Amino acid sequence: MRLSRYFLPTLKETPAEAEIVSHRLMLRAGMIRQGAAGIYSWLPLGYAVLQNIEQIVREEQDRAGANELLMPTIQSSELWRQSGRYEDYGKEMLRIKDRHGREMLYGPTNEELITEIFRAGAKSYRDVPSMLYHIQWKFRDEVRPRFGVMRGREFLMKDAYSFDLDQESAHRAYRKQFVTYLRTFARMGLKAVPMEAETGPIGGNLSHEFVILADTGETEIFTHKDLLDYDVLGQNIDLDDDDQIKPIVDYWTTQYARTDDMHDQAEFERQVPEDKRVQRRGIEVGHIFYFGTKYSEPLEANVSTKDGQSVPVHMGSYGVGVSRLVGGLIEAFHDDAGIVWPESVAPFKVGLINLRANDESCRTACDELHAKLEQAGITVLYDDTDESPGAKFAQMDLIGLPWQLIVGPKGLKAGTVELKHRASGERHELSPDAALQKLAG
Amino acid sequence: MRLSRYFLPTLKETPAEAEIVSHRLMLRAGMIRQGAAGIYSWLPLGYAVLQNIEQIVREEQDRAGANELLMPTIQSSELWRQSGRYEDYGKEMLRIKDRHGREMLYGPTNEELITEIFRAGAKSYRDVPSMLYHIQWKFRDEVRPRFGVMRGREFLMKDAYSFDLDQESAHRAYRKQFVTYLRTFARMGLKAVPMEAETGPIGGNLSHEFVILADTGETEIFTHKDLLDYDVLGQNIDLDDDDQIKPIVDYWTTQYARTDDMHDQAEFERQVPEDKRVQRRGIEVGHIFYFGTKYSEPLEANVSTKDGQSVPVHMGSYGVGVSRLVGGLIEAFHDDAGIVWPESVAPFKVGLINLRANDESCRTACDELHAKLEQAGITVLYDDTDESPGAKFAQMDLIGLPWQLIVGPKGLKAGTVELKHRASGERHELSPDAALQKLAG
Repeated sequence: MRLSRYFLPTLKETPAEAEIVSHRLMLRAGMIRQGAAGIYSWLPLGYAVLQNIEQIVREEQDRAGANELLMPTIQSSELWRQSGRYEDYGKEMLRIKDRHGREMLYGPTNEELITEIFRAGAKSYRDVPSMLYHIQWKFRDEVRPRFGVMRGREFLMKDAYSFDLDQESAHRAYRKQFVTYLRTFARMGLKAVPMEAETGPIGGNLSHEFVILADTGETEIFTHKDLLDYDVLGQNIDLDDDDQIKPIVDYWTTQYARTDDMHDQAEFERQVPEDKRVQRRGIEVGHIFYFGTKYSEPLEANVSTKDGQSVPVHMGSYGVGVSRLVGGLIEAFHDDAGIVWPESVAPFKVGLINLRANDESCRTACDELHAKLEQAGITVLYDDTDESPGAKFAQMDLIGLPWQLIVGPKGLKAGTVELKHRASGERHELSPDAALQKLAG
Repeated sequence: MRLSRYFLPTLKETPAEAEIVSHRLMLRAGMIRQGAAGIYSWLPLGYAVLQNIEQIVREEQDRAGANELLMPTIQSSELWRQSGRYEDYGKEMLRIKDRHGREMLYGPTNEELITEIFRAGAKSYRDVPSMLYHIQWKFRDEVRPRFGVMRGREFLMKDAYSFDLDQESAHRAYRKQFVTYLRTFARMGLKAVPMEAETGPIGGNLSHEFVILADTGETEIFTHKDLLDYDVLGQNIDLDDDDQIKPIVDYWTTQYARTDDMHDQAEFERQVPEDKRVQRRGIEVGHIFYFGTKYSEPLEANVSTKDGQSVPVHMGSYGVGVSRLVGGLIEAFHDDAGIVWPESVAPFKVGLINLRANDESCRTACDELHAKLEQAGITVLYDDTDESPGAKFAQMDLIGLPWQLIVGPKGLKAGTVELKHRASGERHELSPDAALQKLAG
């Protein structure tokens, strides 16, 4: 992609209204633009990151055997009255009257609707276990939206729902999602720690929130160092085999891991040896719940058992804050010069910088590198503009692509280009072909 | 994907409320479920088709050099007051008050918001031409929503917007999208014909709607047979080269092509030789507009010219009804037994049918074929249930996958499986390996 054809309205000044670093950097890097309080447009660079995160979440849900569907944003109030949550939700729910005066709402979550869908489509024990998910925009009418996409009103969430015949099977589904979440965040380069949590308005009696480490995070967490060193991606786990899953979940849930509001210093010191005690900051990006028959009973989502009885299904729900993660990732990965994307979510893998756009040899070399990178399936943003080298470097550092490939007249004469690694700052002079090989590897 | 793990609530009965064939088949095939009038959940099979259509639209927009972004569903009323459309839109616009009493709305289209985004990000002639698009849910509060996803209230649309320095350049953008639309619909196996159209509430003075052929379509169309035989995908067109684009657009726009409300029989007979006259039914699935400075003037989206003047940009907008296309495709491709998906949009390419799930040799052979198909990257829905062969055949025909691979004990003994082509009904007995090769080809 040529920068001259890419809508990237970066800002030189730091926007005054932004209180936290991810909000500032997203505005400065031209990733988002506010439409109304807590409601954002995702500009091309920001949307590319959002789509990459979404795709990782999708692949891991598919791997867990969940089926993707899509529920609408606007729901009727009827099911919410049946579950008893219509009044409970209060002013955070965006309530709407349509032209016929019918009470509608913009879904803040989807337990009711998915329960109705499952009830209509499933009849017997043969139809469970089942897991359904969608990645859809939600709306919560926060009193004071702030922190950019970290606490917006319109936000993108993955919510999955499990349906099982009994509590034991439902707990297996819970464990499957638990490990799926560990994998999902690890693929984004994040250290995520599940913490025992309150269930809040979703209900139920078993719940964990997943907190990622970020020095500028909102929450203080206390945990065991071994959890942070745990490598879930290095293991070849069969998610259908509970004998493989259960020990992993048991390991994580028996270690000390608490946020500041649940923290007990004496308990922490009792459970964790001094050299293993970790106190860090973090951001909540996922929340999973088992709530049994809380929705299936009032909404009559029953299936027949093998011996002909009709029983309400046991359910769980599993949320990931997809748009929130964009902010969370920046909180975890940035420096004074800007964002430092992990490769798995980066909007482009490489920024190709032409230091002298009006020099024919530079242009020819860059055009060729650009074509070869795209042919190799390597995503590249090619700065072909006539800005000054200093401005180009600053902008590339700001938007945080993992690699910068820098082409100037002096290097070309010597047959070299410069490859800079954004995270480490390491630079290498090498031939264009060697650079391509390194980027393809 | 194993059917035993796939949420596919097909119906045996024909739902009484559905008036048209696509609505009936989408309900019967377990593709959608109504949440409220004109608002649907997309169940896994339906959502897979929607995603495939979305991806074709995306790839063709990218090919045209448009940048993808995402605007939110909820907008503030302010920009709509500035453009003068807030009152114009009437009751079709879903109006919302948030908790602070601010007037918001669920976007029925995005000219205002994109103009504001462009205004904020673009400064000079260097920032044009520019084309931006998103694929996002919209809401139009129809008085009487009907025909399933063909005239729903919450619907998915691709809307692109072009920004140019002057009318001539804006017309080039219009032509680029014109040819892009021909390509987009052709990739879905559809015959689409652009027709000169009224501009309606979008405004402007140049507009075409794209109508696809379907015998059960809502509109009667009259056109020249040669247009239907035109092969746009067979040409290697450089969309950046107007010298290639303009003759194509000129060719299409000089032939007779009108819907019944614009039709003039005498003119039709004058322009089109008798053996070339075609009268068919169709469905509108796209609409493109050039409207100059209608939005850029009131919203002050100006750029500076080379000689330092400030001028409002010339704009166009380009819509594709993405969710509507799912219904449109079914109207175009179905028979008495069910849907007949073109391969490019099919939810799975192959339906693998195990005729006797409790027979070990059948199960082993099917498991192996299933694994090999997935390894080869061929999407497959594997009916591993213990339903009767008749029920399995009927369901596979209903959901319309392009190929059925049928495995039974008798054939296996002779070393063969059966491959059925859904569209033609042709059947072939061949070895499992030969079947795999044919499907991979």
